[in-house]
Amino acid sequence: MSEPINQKDDEEKGGVHYKVIGSRPLAQDAVDKSTGRAAYTGDIKLPRMIQGKILRSPHAHARIRSIDTSRAEALTGVLAVVTWRDLWPAKDLANQERVKPRYSHFRDSYFARHKALYCGHPIAAVAAAEPWLAEEALKLIDVDYEVLPPVLDPLRALEKDSPILHEDNIPKEGRPGVGGNVAFRVENLKGDPETGFAQAEVIVEREFRIGTIHQGYIEPTAAVADWTSERQLKLWSSTQSVFFVRRDVAELLPIPMAHIQVIPTEPGGSFGGKSAAFLEPAAALLSRKSGRPVRMVMSREEVFTATVPSTGCFIRVKMGATRLGRITAATATMIFETGAYRGLSWAAGGARLMFAPYDIPNGRIEGYDVFVNKPKSGSFRAPNAPQVTFAYENVIDELSEKLGLDPMEFRLRNVARQGTRKIDGLVYPRIGFMETLQAAMKTDHYQTPLQGPCRGRGIACGWWPNNALQSTCSLGVNDDGSVNLITGSIDVGSNARTAIAMQAAERLSIPLAEIHPLTGDTSSIGYTATTGGSRTTFATGIAAITAADELIRRMRERAALLWNIDSSTVAYGEGTFTTDSDPAKRLTFKEVAAQVLSTGGPIFVTASLEPKGVGSAVSVCLVDLEVDPETGKVAILRCTSIQDVGRAIHPGHVEGQIQGAVAQGIGRALSEEYQFDDQGRLLNRSFLDYRMPTATDVPLIETVLVEVPNPGHPYGVRGVAEPPVVPPPAAVAIAINRALGIRLFELPMTPERVLRAMGKLG
Amino acid sequence: MSEPINQKDDEEKGGVHYKVIGSRPLAQDAVDKSTGRAAYTGDIKLPRMIQGKILRSPHAHARIRSIDTSRAEALTGVLAVVTWRDLWPAKDLANQERVKPRYSHFRDSYFARHKALYCGHPIAAVAAAEPWLAEEALKLIDVDYEVLPPVLDPLRALEKDSPILHEDNIPKEGRPGVGGNVAFRVENLKGDPETGFAQAEVIVEREFRIGTIHQGYIEPTAAVADWTSERQLKLWSSTQSVFFVRRDVAELLPIPMAHIQVIPTEPGGSFGGKSAAFLEPAAALLSRKSGRPVRMVMSREEVFTATVPSTGCFIRVKMGATRLGRITAATATMIFETGAYRGLSWAAGGARLMFAPYDIPNGRIEGYDVFVNKPKSGSFRAPNAPQVTFAYENVIDELSEKLGLDPMEFRLRNVARQGTRKIDGLVYPRIGFMETLQAAMKTDHYQTPLQGPCRGRGIACGWWPNNALQSTCSLGVNDDGSVNLITGSIDVGSNARTAIAMQAAERLSIPLAEIHPLTGDTSSIGYTATTGGSRTTFATGIAAITAADELIRRMRERAALLWNIDSSTVAYGEGTFTTDSDPAKRLTFKEVAAQVLSTGGPIFVTASLEPKGVGSAVSVCLVDLEVDPETGKVAILRCTSIQDVGRAIHPGHVEGQIQGAVAQGIGRALSEEYQFDDQGRLLNRSFLDYRMPTATDVPLIETVLVEVPNPGHPYGVRGVAEPPVVPPPAAVAIAINRALGIRLFELPMTPERVLRAMGKLG
Repeated sequence: MSEPINQKDDEEKGGVHYKVIGSRPLAQDAVDKSTGRAAYTGDIKLPRMIQGKILRSPHAHARIRSIDTSRAEALTGVLAVVTWRDLWPAKDLANQERVKPRYSHFRDSYFARHKALYCGHPIAAVAAAEPWLAEEALKLIDVDYEVLPPVLDPLRALEKDSPILHEDNIPKEGRPGVGGNVAFRVENLKGDPETGFAQAEVIVEREFRIGTIHQGYIEPTAAVADWTSERQLKLWSSTQSVFFVRRDVAELLPIPMAHIQVIPTEPGGSFGGKSAAFLEPAAALLSRKSGRPVRMVMSREEVFTATVPSTGCFIRVKMGATRLGRITAATATMIFETGAYRGLSWAAGGARLMFAPYDIPNGRIEGYDVFVNKPKSGSFRAPNAPQVTFAYENVIDELSEKLGLDPMEFRLRNVARQGTRKIDGLVYPRIGFMETLQAAMKTDHYQTPLQGPCRGRGIACGWWPNNALQSTCSLGVNDDGSVNLITGSIDVGSNARTAIAMQAAERLSIPLAEIHPLTGDTSSIGYTATTGGSRTTFATGIAAITAADELIRRMRERAALLWNIDSSTVAYGEGTFTTDSDPAKRLTFKEVAAQVLSTGGPIFVTASLEPKGVGSAVSVCLVDLEVDPETGKVAILRCTSIQDVGRAIHPGHVEGQIQGAVAQGIGRALSEEYQFDDQGRLLNRSFLDYRMPTATDVPLIETVLVEVPNPGHPYGVRGVAEPPVVPPPAAVAIAINRALGIRLFELPMTPERVLRAMGKLG
Repeated sequence: MSEPINQKDDEEKGGVHYKVIGSRPLAQDAVDKSTGRAAYTGDIKLPRMIQGKILRSPHAHARIRSIDTSRAEALTGVLAVVTWRDLWPAKDLANQERVKPRYSHFRDSYFARHKALYCGHPIAAVAAAEPWLAEEALKLIDVDYEVLPPVLDPLRALEKDSPILHEDNIPKEGRPGVGGNVAFRVENLKGDPETGFAQAEVIVEREFRIGTIHQGYIEPTAAVADWTSERQLKLWSSTQSVFFVRRDVAELLPIPMAHIQVIPTEPGGSFGGKSAAFLEPAAALLSRKSGRPVRMVMSREEVFTATVPSTGCFIRVKMGATRLGRITAATATMIFETGAYRGLSWAAGGARLMFAPYDIPNGRIEGYDVFVNKPKSGSFRAPNAPQVTFAYENVIDELSEKLGLDPMEFRLRNVARQGTRKIDGLVYPRIGFMETLQAAMKTDHYQTPLQGPCRGRGIACGWWPNNALQSTCSLGVNDDGSVNLITGSIDVGSNARTAIAMQAAERLSIPLAEIHPLTGDTSSIGYTATTGGSRTTFATGIAAITAADELIRRMRERAALLWNIDSSTVAYGEGTFTTDSDPAKRLTFKEVAAQVLSTGGPIFVTASLEPKGVGSAVSVCLVDLEVDPETGKVAILRCTSIQDVGRAIHPGHVEGQIQGAVAQGIGRALSEEYQFDDQGRLLNRSFLDYRMPTATDVPLIETVLVEVPNPGHPYGVRGVAEPPVVPPPAAVAIAINRALGIRLFELPMTPERVLRAMGKLG
């Protein structure tokens, strides 16, 4: 556990020494989590609770002629059956579609109506007293399918004669390129790429294919619904965002948001994959129909086939540079699978990330989201970034090779800095590319030569913009001086609750142990966006700091009241209220707290905001590996992740984030991939067949925390969870090149693909 | 359902017509309550939950030589046993007693240490998998008692040779009269009573005895504790105040308040009797020791013997008046049983209430709280008020009889008005004694003569100050325009949540159905005092109104942002935002709500306050009855309750409050009373033997709502729940006098006592 490398530390802190920030206290939930007492959604057991199961399409592409649930409904012990017909009353349907056309896709993705668009597409849901009985009932639902040819490859989806998933996706004016299987298209242009390439003395152009992978969280998606009365639907949800779940349920059913109370449980991993409602709407409908609490838990197979995996894609990158090592132009074409339905635009996200670490004078980035008969794509830790970084960093490495330049030297000659304008138009504020690359070069790892046959070292650099969005934090001070802190931010296992409490403790100048952080449900705390985009320690942290400032302001008023002086003369610091007007007057935080109720009523404050000033982050990955020339298997020997974290609130937890992310990056690099048959059926739908790295595949990840404070946060916080997942696949590919002298352009780099690239598989 | 009689309605409302206030919508919890879906504490079922039981003293007064729990602990299946030793670690005990001497009584009342002071006093608690097993284990706890003579009568307690309950209650300087069995003494003096009596031409002096009664809530006291980790104790509690429970648990264990999350359930009745922790501390200790969730539910016998019944008392009242019917002096001596331990001062409360409706020029009120070997006394709907009102209204009636004046005429000649100074020094603000008495005289009931043998009509007038205390309300506006309203106020069945939501709806100018009210737990909402003292619709209502005003202010800012104008030019009314600067600009509440998240972040506001301006309330009870001369049984023929309610937010619910309160007043008048044997053992400890009125005992109560708005509340609200319980016992006694020509001075006026007063029982 190295201490963070503080950049210009004294200057930034102004000589302030933090008491809580930068320390490594035990996480607030450490005891619960390690003793098994933390409550996950699967632990929710309600009286009279029954079990729900979902019937899913066995076909990747099929027209649905009819759905007949009558036999299932007639089965003794079946308490409710629901289909798309239950999402909205029939009489409202036409009207809703007129008012909110986009929702017809949203709704059809939830329960298939006219077409099933992927293997696993929900058709109906059944609730019964026992799970096996619900499963029996599923078999009694008669669905008449007309099977259609599936579209599984994003390039095939673009061909003129490809089957079309959504017949209503017709070309529209003002949206060039969209229509057919193209859901969205983006194009960013800076300067004149053609002129740029004309100036280039070396040009590299490569095509990359990146497979679909899953977030691989341990806890299967789960929900419990209890529709206690017409106006009160309680939902317990394994989610990153109780408010996103509430929104989805409110729109799908539809019912007023205020009638829905989504109660957070501890999510057992999520990584971007639990930011929407999955089982909750079905559980709610089943609960309403049966009058019982309904529990639903996905099997692992359902998790793989019917949640939102990370998008597979095709990327073509072309870059040119002068002999002096200055990049003159770069272009990229990206085709992202959006799956059967459109969610976020992966093309738009990827366009923002492509070439991000470099100052590109002339560039064009073109991206497409295309429909394929696979589950809808979703976010996974720094979505799109590992994919595009794999592409551009491999080309950067090959360019530097062709130029005869050390790749780090080449990077440093082209690195983006404060003021650099990206191809998408963003002008970087203070940004730590240079500092992080330099820190990487100073590591023991970088300085220690690697030797041996079939061994290689790779280095790659990635960027992640991070996110802000809306957060709410409430603080209440108790008689005994303890403080309740409530946010709407789910702690997804990232120790966000501790990081937020530490910021509040620092600001309130009280011990961390005096603050008790809890996550509120959707009814008891203000709107707070998902724990995602590495936003929580930043944005909810600012909400906590803002609330703490208001709490102190009100307590100063109370001290002033007790002293019968003007509150403007009361100061607070080091846990003590003082006044210039009389040095003898001193009241501790606890002393004022004890008199709050008798001096004008309770103090309970809320900060609800959307902060500006999010700080993007840079990550560099340095990896040593060895390839077994007989089997093609890659063993990671050593790995160091260097990251600009802005300010590490809890360095130990930041290191943990980095280590976990790098492990996931190694999984994407070497072994993880969805494998479909030609009918669009997922073949590897268990953890046995879908190969995530285990402890034997990943060495202890070394971490280097670089602290270039983000001026947009009072303590300099940048999001830290996503950036370290970005560069590992590129670094691994470059290391394989050093080991074998060959380049791989496809992820994951499985033993089979390595052997094939080595020419050993014919 | 008569409409309220609005006093000077137009003047007060300033011509405003309310849209929500004064209407009679379905209560927010009506469906849940009537379909059995509302969750009470007994409905909480947690995985691995075990059951706790309490060993109680069989002696009313005994020294405890030793408590040996070893045999119980050794019983297979017993998971935890706790006694007073578990409340504090032994090493802290001496220190705590030094720092907080008053807590030694508080703690000893919770688990007896050196002495057991009433039959039912907790000695130990046991948790086991099954309740019967826990009960078996209780039998294995060996307690060595030295039985002492009990003190059961408050007058006996004051005698010099009486046994003493608390040897440490020694006389202290500055507290005259306190010491021995006297816990507290109060004396209020106004003018010169001796001179006043000298001016009187008629004097009446009477002594009254009022029995102990129970609140008689249907749901037995219950608690579930789940100590999920060192820093997180979850409690589900059948309580009127989650914050009071938290305070008691925090002080008893002791642990920081922030570590305790008390989660409200629907209380199945409370009436003042559930404002403190009962089973929660024991359940918490058992949960900590066993590592399991622990459920505890009292038997009805435990509810009667070991909760906090309404104090029995002895009262002597003397009043004098001139022939012209002007009261010249009044004195009272009140001796209240505080039970085995001291809680609130009943003497102080009673002194505030004595003679309240009348303008007394010279008066003295002396009150004592005395220890007796009975359960600690507690609040019951308008605590002390029915007792003292029974005394003074009977004397008022007898005085008017001796003066030959109509009792209403006598009252009107002496009624207190705005500016009248009470004996305790309070000067009445605007107060509706006159209006309420006049309204009573205008009722059909008053105007209709009563005829027949053994029939009589009584009328009595009572006052209740109501209470304010601290309240918190949060409001959050959702994308779809629905609004979440969260308070810390428990809805004890009084429909407080609807009354608060109605005030918010009125202020926000949106339909009530758009507001969804919920009760927060102690961690997610700011401190809010108990639902008691008829404070909730008043004080939490003001918090809701204050929060609503802030919500509108912030939404005006957002409308201004959307219009790019200054927010000071934006007005809101009738559900629409408008601006003088451009009459074409109009945005509905829903339209602004939909754009809140995109115009600066969520809007979630909190008002935490202690309002001034509580409005006291007047109630008049008019009762017709018939006495069976053979059995002495009294049948209530007709009863009308007339009350100054300030402003009836929901007239139907106010009427319900009045009807329920009058029924309880009739119970106190005629049948309810604790009966002890000479060893202090409660004899009637079931609903079969403790006789509460049933539907056959109480006619449909007629109600008249008088609205003299309270200027301290934006809509004029006065507390309404307690005043109507105050006058019925006095009214019934006066009616019995009219029926039989005899006076009774003891409550309840059972058939036996009626017969005895009639001379029929020798």
